[in-house]
Amino acid sequence: ITLCEVGLRDGLQNEKTILPTQEKVDLLHGLVDAGFKVIEVGSFMHPKAVPQMADTDEVFKAVGQIPGVELRALIPNLRGVQRAVDCGCKKVKLNVSASRQHNLKNLNMTPEQSVAGFAECVKAAGEHGIAISGSISMPFGSPWDGRIPLADVESIIEAYLNVGITEISLSDTSGMAVPNQVYEMCAHVAEKYPQVSWWLHFHNTRGLAIANIMAAMEAGMTQFDTSFGGLGGCPFVPNAAGNISTEDVLNLCEESGIETGVDCLKIMELSKRVRD
Amino acid sequence: ITLCEVGLRDGLQNEKTILPTQEKVDLLHGLVDAGFKVIEVGSFMHPKAVPQMADTDEVFKAVGQIPGVELRALIPNLRGVQRAVDCGCKKVKLNVSASRQHNLKNLNMTPEQSVAGFAECVKAAGEHGIAISGSISMPFGSPWDGRIPLADVESIIEAYLNVGITEISLSDTSGMAVPNQVYEMCAHVAEKYPQVSWWLHFHNTRGLAIANIMAAMEAGMTQFDTSFGGLGGCPFVPNAAGNISTEDVLNLCEESGIETGVDCLKIMELSKRVRD
Repeated sequence: ITLCEVGLRDGLQNEKTILPTQEKVDLLHGLVDAGFKVIEVGSFMHPKAVPQMADTDEVFKAVGQIPGVELRALIPNLRGVQRAVDCGCKKVKLNVSASRQHNLKNLNMTPEQSVAGFAECVKAAGEHGIAISGSISMPFGSPWDGRIPLADVESIIEAYLNVGITEISLSDTSGMAVPNQVYEMCAHVAEKYPQVSWWLHFHNTRGLAIANIMAAMEAGMTQFDTSFGGLGGCPFVPNAAGNISTEDVLNLCEESGIETGVDCLKIMELSKRVRD
Repeated sequence: ITLCEVGLRDGLQNEKTILPTQEKVDLLHGLVDAGFKVIEVGSFMHPKAVPQMADTDEVFKAVGQIPGVELRALIPNLRGVQRAVDCGCKKVKLNVSASRQHNLKNLNMTPEQSVAGFAECVKAAGEHGIAISGSISMPFGSPWDGRIPLADVESIIEAYLNVGITEISLSDTSGMAVPNQVYEMCAHVAEKYPQVSWWLHFHNTRGLAIANIMAAMEAGMTQFDTSFGGLGGCPFVPNAAGNISTEDVLNLCEESGIETGVDCLKIMELSKRVRD
């Protein structure tokens, strides 16, 4: 299986402390040294919305390209593609919420309309040789809509396919997914959309992230996001877990005979450094 | 499935604060009110070894018997049976470590010799109408021996059967079990020893408790220990999880359509009371 380390983005984004750029660069090199081949470096959101990620451009400029390693950034819109071009980022990821109420309220658009609007991002990225992927937040359940009907998720997947995006992440950012549901949805979409390269992103809000990863593996999924040191604990509930820790997933894989190519001891050292 | 609430024993035992007897009695009534049919009330260890459990006799005397609810206590030896008789406890549980090195070093006996020595407990319990069960600590792995060979676990199970104990708990107190291993061992022992009533007890030390419970369920196991509020976090590693929280397991079951008969909201209220 392949793990994408998202601690520098989804982890730090949910921590109060803002790390200096050089510290992010050092951590990124540490993650590469530990064996990660896919790393989410940051995001090109508006700096006022997500101040922890304001220096993502600087991190990319400092690191440059690393052979054999994909460094990706989350982008909100076309401006994100332009920032990627300017700082040398070669992989961007769009996002839409599967919560219809949420999307309609905030953007006055359905999730499908949002995704259709991404066509200009795909075009611009293609012109600059930047790879582009898409993610769907809360496809398993949202605090606003409860469980999301499978047909709604399919409709968003098809909207992504329509604009030419074939790498899609199912992101349980609300931590509401349960294993049998994960297995069913993953098995279903993997069979129905064989052309898609799937990623799964689980939060441990209710302690089910590892079980959900296992359920997804059983359904044939092989690409998962994790966060070193479990960075990005839930910002709302004290002591509640947010991101699933890379170390826990590496331990599961090592003890189960599943290859990841990532050195758990090196990751533990990086986590310790961030916590201290 | 059936859950045994062990927070009052394995939970409180690993917390620094010692609760007053009346508070334990109130919590026990709360757990019964929430729907638990099996509760581990405490242990009859030497009060100097486990001061948090020194008043287990008093809790039993205060609560008496509750129709339809099994109230059990952990005992170390024959003296434990006598204390059970004296305070009206009707269900006791013995324990042995599957770690040979650990057992040899501490008791100068193999685990099988320890279990054979329990015959006198079984006899005394039978004479006083007290039900008796046994548990095996660290059958999946121990810090001293690493993974435990299946043959060693079978040998301990057979020692329990030889003294007439047919209710056995596999207790991953070191939190070292991984799901594929759990599935294999559970499926194997369930088939080989159909006369045994099995319990599974997982610790969340490495974040795998829920996944291990699911793996055991898939192998046909139906009886699990949980601890309300996740009481009994690992005493050695700050912020590391010890017991699996009852609420997380109830959430998994509710969302997966598995009946437990326990009211999660009531348990959350009890957990909140203990934390405050």
